[in-house]
Amino acid sequence: MAIPRVELERAIDAALAEDLALGDPTTDALIPPERQGRAIMIAREPGIASGVDVAAAVFQRVDPSLSTTPLVGDGQALEAGGLMLSVEGAFASILSAERTAVNFAQRMSGIATLAAQYVKAVEGTGAAIVDTRKTAPGLRVLDKHAVASGGGRNHRQALGDGVLIKDNHIAALRDEGLSIAEIVARARANAAHTIKIEVEVQTLEEARDAMDGKPDILLLDNMNPDEMRKVVDLVHGRALTEASGGITLANVAEVAASGVDLISIGALTHSPRALDISLDYSG
Amino acid sequence: MAIPRVELERAIDAALAEDLALGDPTTDALIPPERQGRAIMIAREPGIASGVDVAAAVFQRVDPSLSTTPLVGDGQALEAGGLMLSVEGAFASILSAERTAVNFAQRMSGIATLAAQYVKAVEGTGAAIVDTRKTAPGLRVLDKHAVASGGGRNHRQALGDGVLIKDNHIAALRDEGLSIAEIVARARANAAHTIKIEVEVQTLEEARDAMDGKPDILLLDNMNPDEMRKVVDLVHGRALTEASGGITLANVAEVAASGVDLISIGALTHSPRALDISLDYSG
Amino acid sequence: MAIPRVELERAIDAALAEDLALGDPTTDALIPPERQGRAIMIAREPGIASGVDVAAAVFQRVDPSLSTTPLVGDGQALEAGGLMLSVEGAFASILSAERTAVNFAQRMSGIATLAAQYVKAVEGTGAAIVDTRKTAPGLRVLDKHAVASGGGRNHRQALGDGVLIKDNHIAALRDEGLSIAEIVARARANAAHTIKIEVEVQTLEEARDAMDGKPDILLLDNMNPDEMRKVVDLVHGRALTEASGGITLANVAEVAASGVDLISIGALTHSPRALDISLDYSG
Amino acid sequence: MAIPRVELERAIDAALAEDLALGDPTTDALIPPERQGRAIMIAREPGIASGVDVAAAVFQRVDPSLSTTPLVGDGQALEAGGLMLSVEGAFASILSAERTAVNFAQRMSGIATLAAQYVKAVEGTGAAIVDTRKTAPGLRVLDKHAVASGGGRNHRQALGDGVLIKDNHIAALRDEGLSIAEIVARARANAAHTIKIEVEVQTLEEARDAMDGKPDILLLDNMNPDEMRKVVDLVHGRALTEASGGITLANVAEVAASGVDLISIGALTHSPRALDISLDYSG
Amino acid sequence: MAIPRVELERAIDAALAEDLALGDPTTDALIPPERQGRAIMIAREPGIASGVDVAAAVFQRVDPSLSTTPLVGDGQALEAGGLMLSVEGAFASILSAERTAVNFAQRMSGIATLAAQYVKAVEGTGAAIVDTRKTAPGLRVLDKHAVASGGGRNHRQALGDGVLIKDNHIAALRDEGLSIAEIVARARANAAHTIKIEVEVQTLEEARDAMDGKPDILLLDNMNPDEMRKVVDLVHGRALTEASGGITLANVAEVAASGVDLISIGALTHSPRALDISLDYSG
Amino acid sequence: MAIPRVELERAIDAALAEDLALGDPTTDALIPPERQGRAIMIAREPGIASGVDVAAAVFQRVDPSLSTTPLVGDGQALEAGGLMLSVEGAFASILSAERTAVNFAQRMSGIATLAAQYVKAVEGTGAAIVDTRKTAPGLRVLDKHAVASGGGRNHRQALGDGVLIKDNHIAALRDEGLSIAEIVARARANAAHTIKIEVEVQTLEEARDAMDGKPDILLLDNMNPDEMRKVVDLVHGRALTEASGGITLANVAEVAASGVDLISIGALTHSPRALDISLDYSG
Repeated sequence: MAIPRVELERAIDAALAEDLALGDPTTDALIPPERQGRAIMIAREPGIASGVDVAAAVFQRVDPSLSTTPLVGDGQALEAGGLMLSVEGAFASILSAERTAVNFAQRMSGIATLAAQYVKAVEGTGAAIVDTRKTAPGLRVLDKHAVASGGGRNHRQALGDGVLIKDNHIAALRDEGLSIAEIVARARANAAHTIKIEVEVQTLEEARDAMDGKPDILLLDNMNPDEMRKVVDLVHGRALTEASGGITLANVAEVAASGVDLISIGALTHSPRALDISLDYSG
Repeated sequence: MAIPRVELERAIDAALAEDLALGDPTTDALIPPERQGRAIMIAREPGIASGVDVAAAVFQRVDPSLSTTPLVGDGQALEAGGLMLSVEGAFASILSAERTAVNFAQRMSGIATLAAQYVKAVEGTGAAIVDTRKTAPGLRVLDKHAVASGGGRNHRQALGDGVLIKDNHIAALRDEGLSIAEIVARARANAAHTIKIEVEVQTLEEARDAMDGKPDILLLDNMNPDEMRKVVDLVHGRALTEASGGITLANVAEVAASGVDLISIGALTHSPRALDISLDYSG
Repeated sequence: MAIPRVELERAIDAALAEDLALGDPTTDALIPPERQGRAIMIAREPGIASGVDVAAAVFQRVDPSLSTTPLVGDGQALEAGGLMLSVEGAFASILSAERTAVNFAQRMSGIATLAAQYVKAVEGTGAAIVDTRKTAPGLRVLDKHAVASGGGRNHRQALGDGVLIKDNHIAALRDEGLSIAEIVARARANAAHTIKIEVEVQTLEEARDAMDGKPDILLLDNMNPDEMRKVVDLVHGRALTEASGGITLANVAEVAASGVDLISIGALTHSPRALDISLDYSG
Repeated sequence: MAIPRVELERAIDAALAEDLALGDPTTDALIPPERQGRAIMIAREPGIASGVDVAAAVFQRVDPSLSTTPLVGDGQALEAGGLMLSVEGAFASILSAERTAVNFAQRMSGIATLAAQYVKAVEGTGAAIVDTRKTAPGLRVLDKHAVASGGGRNHRQALGDGVLIKDNHIAALRDEGLSIAEIVARARANAAHTIKIEVEVQTLEEARDAMDGKPDILLLDNMNPDEMRKVVDLVHGRALTEASGGITLANVAEVAASGVDLISIGALTHSPRALDISLDYSG
Repeated sequence: MAIPRVELERAIDAALAEDLALGDPTTDALIPPERQGRAIMIAREPGIASGVDVAAAVFQRVDPSLSTTPLVGDGQALEAGGLMLSVEGAFASILSAERTAVNFAQRMSGIATLAAQYVKAVEGTGAAIVDTRKTAPGLRVLDKHAVASGGGRNHRQALGDGVLIKDNHIAALRDEGLSIAEIVARARANAAHTIKIEVEVQTLEEARDAMDGKPDILLLDNMNPDEMRKVVDLVHGRALTEASGGITLANVAEVAASGVDLISIGALTHSPRALDISLDYSG
Repeated sequence: MAIPRVELERAIDAALAEDLALGDPTTDALIPPERQGRAIMIAREPGIASGVDVAAAVFQRVDPSLSTTPLVGDGQALEAGGLMLSVEGAFASILSAERTAVNFAQRMSGIATLAAQYVKAVEGTGAAIVDTRKTAPGLRVLDKHAVASGGGRNHRQALGDGVLIKDNHIAALRDEGLSIAEIVARARANAAHTIKIEVEVQTLEEARDAMDGKPDILLLDNMNPDEMRKVVDLVHGRALTEASGGITLANVAEVAASGVDLISIGALTHSPRALDISLDYSG
């Protein structure tokens, strides 16, 4: 998704507030404000770029007179040594912004790189790799943008843009004697007509129960590929199917081969490895 | 570090704003507000707990009438299946808060668990494991609290609480003909007397140059253990030594054996794997 | 929808900031802080209550020691003279909060009352009355809660929780030679699988074109009931149909009779008449 | 009043945050970021323009590279079809900002149009139409600017810029045995010398009592024009007189003819009908 | 004025954010969270108390479980050694809040003490001591509350609660050929009826000119007491008179003797000396 | 320290919000928006400039189209009549921003002027004048920048950038039987290696005790110069020494002569006299 400017600035201001709350005494002590300079943001390992514009916005938030030039677009592949962003102007400003700018870019590019690996692993199947709401608190929009940079698709952005009936909803309502189909029906009766209804199931049995409620999407939680295949057969196109839980780069192709439409990967945003990125003085 | 309440609430409000901006139609549709219930936050794998109070604060921010009981303290070890937090009250509120509460706890416990692994790997040496400013933007205070939960020590919290002369400062000033010693001396002359001065060096040569400036801490960037040992010998207690760059669980013991005082690990906070934590309905 | 607490407090703080920025010199001059008192919020005309809890929260934000008792629930009918809320404690605090508390309740109850009139007018048909994003800026969540209090249903809360292809999207893409069906197909290819796709049409012709793209919802803009009926026949259950534009209390029943599923009314939130509500000293 | 920039940006950011929190998937899916376009904001019915600059500021907040050209000034009359604002640039940005920009303009122009009707109805009398604090929560400054656009005058902006002794103040103090004159005197003794003192009365009797306290302004609440005339005679220029309560476009001229100086109309801001405004793609 | 809670919390949060942004490592290192204790806020010199409730609110913001007991009311006289506030609970929390709590109390009590000196100096004359808008940025409401604690009266709180035509307004309009009377008349014609009109004059001549415009208040800027007396005679009760500029504790009695109604003292809030206040551990 | 832009804007927005919350009716009534003009900020007494860029930023925040030209740099000396800043553009905007801009500049220049007097008084000794955390709540960064403008040095910016063991920490731990040396040792064991440890002592005895703990800095609280000299002798360069408490312009030279390294002066920021600055219309 495109990052709305208001969200972008909120995230950047929060990050700068925590890093620059007490100023930058190192730079104050060493670099006179009139000293000009240039630096380049460089990937130290291969990956997929994301957050280049975010990093540029950090530099310009610290000092609007800095001039930034993106050298790669979000979603493009980077070699080790690949140039990402050039920034030029008061070198003291560049130094004060450096860590925050790189922190954004390394997390976002790390997410994009991981997403791209999953996307590649399922290439040729019909399955789409999608993200979850398991994002770093406060970084939802940026994390999801990064998934998209890596070729992943976005699932629900927030609790509010879809009905997803999860294990705890079902457990609480089963206590009252409802079947999954009845739970889905209650959701349909009460929720907005404009959003889809998804329901989590953990067995073929539950899938059968759920389908009687005519959900839009069936979330297959922690099933093995064989079970998934049976559910896909059962559903037979009457709903989208989404695999979730215990999926890794090692087994994702097998999961995709089961015929599910969507494969959601929490690790994309809750456990990404940062891409190794540095900012280098270039005169 | 203890988490200041103002910072805690800022982080929680930012996270809830992004997840609950459009409300929770699933829960609205299914769970009547008067329905009471209880849920338990459980670790699905072994690790070190952190963020338990943060998760509790999320539940109470969503609904102050919820009652929360921590079942483990930050810094304590968790078995797979270990109970972390019990929450009781309006079940709709518990469901609306669930994801955000777990998102905080799984990141923080993941960081604590990773930190504890590094700390254990250097046990018996004099070296302390310390964090960096490579934190998730907006989560600095929480990330650093989590490192401490794992037995790590905190390095600079922000640009403002220490002078750290890095590669880019040095590169810019070398262009003007200054030696590292002269750069350190300039920092000492201009910076507050109340904060320490640390300087980054990449070779034994540079370390020698730097020590003439009498820094408080020497940052050994990307050296191998042999080089580190030589620098430690050279420094001979006149400054603290800090190893940084390219350090993993596999080689950290060897690094510690070089005699450095501090080992800083960016990955603690830029690339932690989330601990597997779930919230389970318990009636 | 239930109002998330973080959103509620943001709206209340914004309102109190603008009314109490310079304090309350009238009350300061007249009412000593220790003076106790009680006041009742009363509807001066019949209607549907909404915002009672919001008003209570305003009083408690101004002074947490005030005690409030709701006397009617959101969604319940009020006679002229109907009691809504009792508040008791430091009377100076009650007076300082009065206007802001009533401002929320009178707008929200006005919206609920208007929504209920539309809902009543289509009773017995299958059509649901739904709101739009034409809300007072900054009051989206409260306006939509009020619609629900009146028995209306909520449409998209924000740009992000559904794809709605409107006239301007279509106009821009037609310039490039795309049919509506092709536009819908492009949306389906690019948007999340988890949200529904709605498209606006203005003629039977356009509806035919659009249906080739297999949208989830068809928005019939500014059609007369006859045209709507023809579209409903054409669609024949393959999509939801939503009527919009030029609909009033006078013609809404006729619109509903056309067989559309949803009738969206911008006026519910862009032009509601405030319910006449006052706060009366009661000793 | 001129709208202070800090207030303007606060209102716009709150509105954009609620509409764009989850981005704009429709536009993301359909309109490439490099696509340029132009749109015109047009009044669909006659009225008085207000909020044109606010709408322009919304577009520029979403995307500072958009270029906006106001085609009418706040306070100017609009015919049906009257052009209000042209905006040009990245068409995706225009679409994402559209609803929020129009929401501001349609409310503000609706208020201005209603205010102008009241102002016209009392033309030729000495009475001024004034607003109240019955504004949409969070929109005080914009609502009052819109009243001024329609030729109305502004009454108190907040609790803090004038002393206004209302029914509840009086009721509480009468319980302690004070006359209205004594209440006014207490206010004068305790309040700042720099703000005026206004007091509400509901009968000629009360007006007589109040005038002994030498208020600056007398608020005649819910009187009929005959009673008002008697109070005006009684006051005889020693205070301003303000009529309030139960005043409509149908009877406002008669109220004005009573000789009151000010006529305050809560409905200007608590129950305005939005002006019908649309944004049209123009290539 | 009473301090509105929303303003109070904003000011406290801003102060805590800047002091506790990086936590409190001293207290973390030394005082275990379970350690209980008590401390007393004590005046080290005589003065007038103000900000006692603000200080209490700071402690409770840092840790809601702290218990605070005010030992003196705002506006009461303090001897050297006078007890102001007792706070009890987690001693670590008390220490982390200490500096911020004292910072508020020492500034506010300093302002109150200075105000009381001016008030005492004019005792027996009819003149009131009033403050100005020359407050510390961000502390307007607290500074003005403190003036009131010292027996001073409040002038305009903000640009918005009164018309005050100052030298620069006059200079700009004189360039266009307007007399002061004409300027006052223009203000009366354009401004709200509900706020008073004050105009600044620097000579008897200007006062004569201004009075033709019938202002509510005449601001006598930088006149000596003789000139003031002449203006007071000229005005003869047709407006309030306010002396301003160059007034000190040494000459304020003489200024008051001139018969002016109000004496505004910028130094009350732009140059107060902090009262010497400390927080002492008491077991 | 250089003022981070995010902090600068936060402080300016808070100040403008409180002054312009209700707009500027005086200027609205008198000065048409198209009226152009110029004004000059002038020092009315000698001093040291500070806050010139802050004042310029205030003008541009109120109206980005204003053009500002600094006429003096922060830290430069001003004669009476010295020109500080020129601002040109819409004169209404200049008038609305005037008070807030001057409020910042007069406080900051007042602090700088006072700091310069202390710095001058100790010239030729080795002692540095440093500030404290006794700043106006919300203005920490600006107050400290102003101290630096006057040639003073900055001490801790916040609780987080150094360990400072104060009287209350010591009192609480002495209750548990710890010596000062043991307290210092506990701090060293628990606190980050990267920040210095300072401890407060009040007697030579305590200094002796403390030095056994090997602190980085010794704070000599309320000692007379003779006692200080003895402590300086005792310490003999093993720690920095800082004098604090009861220090005035009259005795600071004598304090400096004792050989202490640092002299901290709370009055720099808790009791500065504002520099007399005005903004004058210049056509």
